Amino acid sequence: MKKVVIDAMGGDNGVGPIVDGMLQALENEKFHAIIVGDSKEITPLLDRGMAKYRPSIEVVHAPSFIAMEESASNAIKRTDSSIYMAMELLREGSADALVSAGHSGATMSLATLRIGRIKGVLRPAICTLMPTVLGHPSLILDAGANTDCKPEYLEQFALMGYQYAHDVLKMPNPRVGLLANGEEDNKGNDLTKEAFTLLKKYDFFKGNVEGGDIFNGESDVIVCDGFVGNITLKTSEAVARTIGAILKKEVLAMGASVKLGAYLIKPALKRLKLQTDYAEYGGAPLLGVQKMVIISHGKSNARAIECAIYQALNSLDAELTEHIKKAFEKEGKDIATSEETGQS
Amino acid sequence: MKKVVIDAMGGDNGVGPIVDGMLQALENEKFHAIIVGDSKEITPLLDRGMAKYRPSIEVVHAPSFIAMEESASNAIKRTDSSIYMAMELLREGSADALVSAGHSGATMSLATLRIGRIKGVLRPAICTLMPTVLGHPSLILDAGANTDCKPEYLEQFALMGYQYAHDVLKMPNPRVGLLANGEEDNKGNDLTKEAFTLLKKYDFFKGNVEGGDIFNGESDVIVCDGFVGNITLKTSEAVARTIGAILKKEVLAMGASVKLGAYLIKPALKRLKLQTDYAEYGGAPLLGVQKMVIISHGKSNARAIECAIYQALNSLDAELTEHIKKAFEKEGKDIATSEETGQS
Repeated sequence: MKKVVIDAMGGDNGVGPIVDGMLQALENEKFHAIIVGDSKEITPLLDRGMAKYRPSIEVVHAPSFIAMEESASNAIKRTDSSIYMAMELLREGSADALVSAGHSGATMSLATLRIGRIKGVLRPAICTLMPTVLGHPSLILDAGANTDCKPEYLEQFALMGYQYAHDVLKMPNPRVGLLANGEEDNKGNDLTKEAFTLLKKYDFFKGNVEGGDIFNGESDVIVCDGFVGNITLKTSEAVARTIGAILKKEVLAMGASVKLGAYLIKPALKRLKLQTDYAEYGGAPLLGVQKMVIISHGKSNARAIECAIYQALNSLDAELTEHIKKAFEKEGKDIATSEETGQS
Repeated sequence: MKKVVIDAMGGDNGVGPIVDGMLQALENEKFHAIIVGDSKEITPLLDRGMAKYRPSIEVVHAPSFIAMEESASNAIKRTDSSIYMAMELLREGSADALVSAGHSGATMSLATLRIGRIKGVLRPAICTLMPTVLGHPSLILDAGANTDCKPEYLEQFALMGYQYAHDVLKMPNPRVGLLANGEEDNKGNDLTKEAFTLLKKYDFFKGNVEGGDIFNGESDVIVCDGFVGNITLKTSEAVARTIGAILKKEVLAMGASVKLGAYLIKPALKRLKLQTDYAEYGGAPLLGVQKMVIISHGKSNARAIECAIYQALNSLDAELTEHIKKAFEKEGKDIATSEETGQS
């Protein structure tokens, strides 16, 4: 049975939603759950689940955790923290995948340092799923792991994103776009122009795409550096939030018929929310490390943790990491070599 | 009387909305309008306006125009194009400001080459106005003129954006933020980290801001390179469009009460649209050139052109260009010198 280790600590809403998400996942999928954190907090919450799942859950006590405001660079020294201990269980093979809604920088840094990169991978990347008008998600990577990138990193992000879309999202022919300031081949900044020439040789590459293409479903995978990716994600969330806030303000300022309208339209808003809710998409896989690590949003609710666990299980079933390793035996080595010797 | 030259050609919707926007502006503001383009197309449309405004309008015939799909690099050779001729009227002083909804690359390149940069300005920047929850706009620059920037460019964008917010938007103490992947001082990529150290000396600098801060009104001016700015703008537009599209689809798929709700809530949606409508904000001033140039969206409707003309007139009244010149006599020279000698 697949084993998923779950970091119970460091999320914005405490241990509750993490445990609940795990319990919900156990109701739908068979797996062995190892939950790491303050056992005094975790154990009483396990009673919320049905007793028959209890044997599938192992609680590992961790005396401390890394708080959001701490620096990620301390993570490697904090061997008694929940994320460090969870990562060790993954490293030594006691678990097959890891899910954490704690300090994402710490998770990333420990995954890279303790689990290690796949051979040939220059930089692991955070891969975030975005809603599209077509109903299925698109992927954007890197969503924040690497603020300054070389063209070869972007080429590798394309390979890894392609593999995730193919294996886990079951897209038969994912199309990969390069995020730029225009669709024409000659658009881009120095970085993306070089990446464009590297990506041209892949059949899956559909050229430059614009900000709008993230949501129209015409690209399945969108590649960018982590600085641009992070700003794009946060801007998207903010626009959605702002539209909601302005609309609410306007409804409240208006008469009874508009207020009735707002009440009646709620089922459609609920469906909209569901389709664009980060929780339904799970977390963000960290692609390029030797084992499956899912970074969940700090504000994750139980549903987000539940979906992140499904995502981990699906990735394991699809043998995603093995496929990325294989892809990099073929393609990645050349890229890495050309980058390291400066022949790009 | 202030003279505004308007490029009638090259907009996505033809000459109609340009002429209508000009006529609407003449009903509310006293100015002399010079409209450049195909006189056979323009002249018949002038009858839509009241006859008393006719003496305030001068039609200048241009035999050709630069189409959206043409390369901006041809603009300098196309001396018989509407934008070239309009720019010449601005250059020789027959007009005080220019508005164009045509090929933005051509407008930008001609403004830089024929009008010229303000002394000390390294790169002119496109400044776009964004809606905020507080009701007043925020500024983002550069929105696309410069894909690859040096830290000194961002410093200068901050100075120019500050001046626009102060002079034209009448903000007494505009606060300038640097767009980054986190609010902490140590966040950013190589470019923004260097820009951060340059910006620290200004009282108006409030540090790093995130994508979300564009819309919450906590920063009045947001500075970034033109690659990031362009992607941010297009992503924002796309999110708004996508939310609308999904909601519409859901409403159509649902029962009568939801459809009634959608009908009743319309007045609030209209107010939302008004508050977030690019047209109400006018166009995007090209800051850093010797004269006032407003770049309007290709898809501009009459209202957008009307507002762009007000924006041009307000900028002239506020003596924006003169103030930027003065600011760069003081600050810009040092920046330019340090950049040119590589002492940044």
